[in-house]
Amino acid sequence: MRVLFWRGIRDTIDSRWVESLVARLDVASGSFSASIDLAEEMARAAIAVEQALDVLLPPVEGAEGRLAEAMRYAALGGGKRMRAFLVLESAALFGVNETCAARVAASVEMMHAYSLVHDDLPAMDDDDLRRGKPSTHRAFDEATAILAGDALQCRAFEILGEHDTHSDPMARCELVVALGAAAGARGMAGGQMIDMLAEGQVLDGPAVTRLQALKTGRLIQYSAESGAILGRVASQQRHLLTAYGRDLGAAFQNADDLLDVEGDAAEIGKTAGKDAAAGKATMVSVLGLELARSHADMLARQAAAHLDGFGDRAANLRALAAFVVARRR
Amino acid sequence: MRVLFWRGIRDTIDSRWVESLVARLDVASGSFSASIDLAEEMARAAIAVEQALDVLLPPVEGAEGRLAEAMRYAALGGGKRMRAFLVLESAALFGVNETCAARVAASVEMMHAYSLVHDDLPAMDDDDLRRGKPSTHRAFDEATAILAGDALQCRAFEILGEHDTHSDPMARCELVVALGAAAGARGMAGGQMIDMLAEGQVLDGPAVTRLQALKTGRLIQYSAESGAILGRVASQQRHLLTAYGRDLGAAFQNADDLLDVEGDAAEIGKTAGKDAAAGKATMVSVLGLELARSHADMLARQAAAHLDGFGDRAANLRALAAFVVARRR
Repeated sequence: MRVLFWRGIRDTIDSRWVESLVARLDVASGSFSASIDLAEEMARAAIAVEQALDVLLPPVEGAEGRLAEAMRYAALGGGKRMRAFLVLESAALFGVNETCAARVAASVEMMHAYSLVHDDLPAMDDDDLRRGKPSTHRAFDEATAILAGDALQCRAFEILGEHDTHSDPMARCELVVALGAAAGARGMAGGQMIDMLAEGQVLDGPAVTRLQALKTGRLIQYSAESGAILGRVASQQRHLLTAYGRDLGAAFQNADDLLDVEGDAAEIGKTAGKDAAAGKATMVSVLGLELARSHADMLARQAAAHLDGFGDRAANLRALAAFVVARRR
Repeated sequence: MRVLFWRGIRDTIDSRWVESLVARLDVASGSFSASIDLAEEMARAAIAVEQALDVLLPPVEGAEGRLAEAMRYAALGGGKRMRAFLVLESAALFGVNETCAARVAASVEMMHAYSLVHDDLPAMDDDDLRRGKPSTHRAFDEATAILAGDALQCRAFEILGEHDTHSDPMARCELVVALGAAAGARGMAGGQMIDMLAEGQVLDGPAVTRLQALKTGRLIQYSAESGAILGRVASQQRHLLTAYGRDLGAAFQNADDLLDVEGDAAEIGKTAGKDAAAGKATMVSVLGLELARSHADMLARQAAAHLDGFGDRAANLRALAAFVVARRR
């Protein structure tokens, strides 16, 4: 029973959410085993970022209170918080103050939440459900969802500029610039643009790799890199974290595509080809199931290898790389 | 003939756009007269920010090129560039490097452009036209417009964090935080939320004032304040610019509401009451035409008065305050 580790959690955090998160991470772990209990480590990070988000999101008050309500709905109490975990673990490598790291983790989860809110809109992927509950535009309305995404992105950048995020303003500026590059027209937003344009198109391997690198990879990469920025370390160490994040992001996305196919296989007796038939370009449609699986495993090993020089301190980050390709959901 | 002052403009700027801008500013000036030629001063600022935008917006290339195209469509070649003028003029008060100021001016115009793109969406104000041409979601499509707005906001923050914007990273952080406060849930986005919720509601004077202060006032205020941030001046001087921007923004919005009513009056023989009947809350509906006019004039005089201590150097900013309430469009 994992009940002891969340003693001292703020009352604002629903303990049922923590229990369900640990249960979900346990299921996801499946037969995955490591020398550390990764599900518990990730739950711990999720709680830290939940507390930070609660403090850093605007309060629900005033005539504009509905906007804060929608921002909180979109950003609180959901997801595995992998990006937050990456920020906290990479920052811990360099002995960064945990409160500072939690602010950056909250900022990146706000960016991630904004992208999900906008991606779910009727004009985009038109999804009614997100993380097991109605998507933001279904729970509120489209206008509120657009504004909530806008305000989440705005707050994510604002947090990075604030003094409490790091005593050195140069570190804060580097975080702003790195997040801007990761999330903008040649990062996450650009990737979503390609994804919208690619519907029904046949993409080759390099095109799929680039789409995924922009759409999901760059923000995951930034999450790992941000710990090195906070740690004010030499560029060589920063490059190692960046390389880890880049390969981890690619492994994560490939594993996601495999889960879609293999989940279907177990459920309805179909194998690869469904995504391809639906016009969705993935590495499975490009490489086939077998090769895509070994490609994902190779990426995960490659990600972990970048961290060899950090020794045991990087055990959690290495375990995460193994986890993203072994997980069951 | 005002043709000489834009010698040396980059070839990428359409000289017809410059001519039409000067013509529009001339019409807007109407019987307004000042010791300076404000239309020419504003056109000069508009050209400087147009050049900066062209350099700072992403190039149209790669599979995601359509996104950059939409960002450029939304941000280039339109508007009076009042916010850019405010940044450049307030920065000039303190001898700030013009290239740095033009970057901040481009950043704030990107934020303004993003807000217009999202406000025009069908789920929001559903406008087909903007600045005399199809709104971005009409010229492209809804998904592209949402992403273009998102990427414009992202780039606006990224620019502020970049080294070329100011040699002192503390100044860059202050710009990020001030823009975040101006544009977020308790600023521009919050104001748009209130505006959406207020449709068909009766708002009283204080509620209308707050709506307008958030929706349009805060970004105008930030534009004036940013020059003081760039100038690294004492807080007293920064407060004067902030106060000027706040009153100018309120005067501008009130004058806008008056123009709507008085434009109608000249055209279809109706006076005040149309906005009120449409459920649109403005200071005209709250105060009536006469009082709203004197209220706007009072705000403009109050704005200019904050700058008394700056002497002749603030002549353009004082002229702008007089202009926003005297303009015909």
